[in-house]
Amino acid sequence: MNAVILGIGLIGGSLARDIRMAVPGARILGQDRNPDHLAKAIALKLVDGEAGAEDLQAADLVVVSIPVNHITETLPGLLDAVGEHTLVVDAGSTKVPICRAVAGHPKRRNFLACHPIAGTEFTGPEAAVSGLFHGKVNIICEVEQTAFQIQERALELFGKIGMRIRYMNPEAHDRHIAYVSHLSHISSFMLGKTVIEKEKNERDIFDMAGSGFESTVRLAKSSPAMWTPIFEQNKENVLETLDEYIANLRDFRDKLAADQYEALYREMDHTNRIRDILKGIPLNNKAD
Amino acid sequence: MNAVILGIGLIGGSLARDIRMAVPGARILGQDRNPDHLAKAIALKLVDGEAGAEDLQAADLVVVSIPVNHITETLPGLLDAVGEHTLVVDAGSTKVPICRAVAGHPKRRNFLACHPIAGTEFTGPEAAVSGLFHGKVNIICEVEQTAFQIQERALELFGKIGMRIRYMNPEAHDRHIAYVSHLSHISSFMLGKTVIEKEKNERDIFDMAGSGFESTVRLAKSSPAMWTPIFEQNKENVLETLDEYIANLRDFRDKLAADQYEALYREMDHTNRIRDILKGIPLNNKAD
Repeated sequence: MNAVILGIGLIGGSLARDIRMAVPGARILGQDRNPDHLAKAIALKLVDGEAGAEDLQAADLVVVSIPVNHITETLPGLLDAVGEHTLVVDAGSTKVPICRAVAGHPKRRNFLACHPIAGTEFTGPEAAVSGLFHGKVNIICEVEQTAFQIQERALELFGKIGMRIRYMNPEAHDRHIAYVSHLSHISSFMLGKTVIEKEKNERDIFDMAGSGFESTVRLAKSSPAMWTPIFEQNKENVLETLDEYIANLRDFRDKLAADQYEALYREMDHTNRIRDILKGIPLNNKAD
Repeated sequence: MNAVILGIGLIGGSLARDIRMAVPGARILGQDRNPDHLAKAIALKLVDGEAGAEDLQAADLVVVSIPVNHITETLPGLLDAVGEHTLVVDAGSTKVPICRAVAGHPKRRNFLACHPIAGTEFTGPEAAVSGLFHGKVNIICEVEQTAFQIQERALELFGKIGMRIRYMNPEAHDRHIAYVSHLSHISSFMLGKTVIEKEKNERDIFDMAGSGFESTVRLAKSSPAMWTPIFEQNKENVLETLDEYIANLRDFRDKLAADQYEALYREMDHTNRIRDILKGIPLNNKAD
């Protein structure tokens, strides 16, 4: 198998590791806007070398694991450049703009729109790990737009890597992912900001922080280059989730100010149902 | 050593385990408002049996690991009941109301106000683990109000358990802990609430949740019986942190609505400094 990975960071690099395990003898080439990342990916043997234009033409598989703004910019030209039988998959955290960018493209049927729900707050080729996708959900959108034989090859590879497949339309994906991923990142960034701002002159405070704090601000380590375009592309859904979150926080605040402790108790007790919900989530980081 | 643990949940039970390791031959008795917890703690050999009034009198050490509203209610009468040389320590997440509850008490010098920064989102004796406090900070307040010999015994025990000691006044403790613990819990509870409310008719969504979501809502599993009185006792500080957090979220929301993506990028980039801050936090749950 000839594979090309565009963007060899956490996701692209981890996929490269899994492809090597799943497909013995695979030849994997890479491209990255950051020459340092490409050099590191070669040094780490994630990829065998740099991909040129002719490698795109000859590729069986091209993985597009770059920030979502670069995906929408790059994907139409990339489809022009790949071969007749090349499977192109992305790993973007938004799906509506990406599917829209290639709607009606003559090679639309070579592309499978994917969002593997896996990752950590780390970035770059050094963050790549084997088995990151094992047992994780990979959401596939607009599957009917992809050629059947191309789908089949993708599903075979995803199966070997251990991904669980879910089909969804791009609109539903973007609406739901705003709640269970994009909002968590904003919540975490703003929590980090609030504490850093307040405590800038009192460094001792972080001695008082425990694992609860760490857990809630962990995502504030995430890459702004990756997340700014996600928030831009999913703006309407993100604004809706943020408005609801802020309204819930204000309500909690007002109940506390009014000494309505029974109401606060009931609200937290009700939200404890999250325990059962979380039991179903396959974790990258076993936190308990 | 004769020890009595009032409240044999996660904290009391974990301390019981550590005391057994640190002080061979220690006799540890317990009390719990929940008879089921006491029975489980005995079955798990966390404690050797139930403590009666005479055991308080004879105790070398009494640990008060119960919700903070019960601490302020119980502590004055408890000090009346203990012996002349008994060391009484608490583990409450607020310090001003607890220190105030025993200010001027004839046996104030038997009490050492403590807040070990350790825990998980789980509760009850089954959640108790050995080594929970190893390398963790234990904040001691108003140390000068405690008799020197009593302090010395406490520090010896804390040293054996591996705690790192920090001294702080109760006001500073309550102000800082609002930022690095209490706010994280509210953020997490309200995030859980927002998502549960929105998605109540669309259960599939949680298939889309990954470890990032899990990390930010983990604390929403916490006990309302423990947390409602903490928010009540630290109301003014918690309101201040909440107001700042909500203002930061609103500002982020408004920048997104106004397409100010460079400003969002800068804000997240700035908050990435949390990476260095988090490096210094000893974790219960190695999340990365």
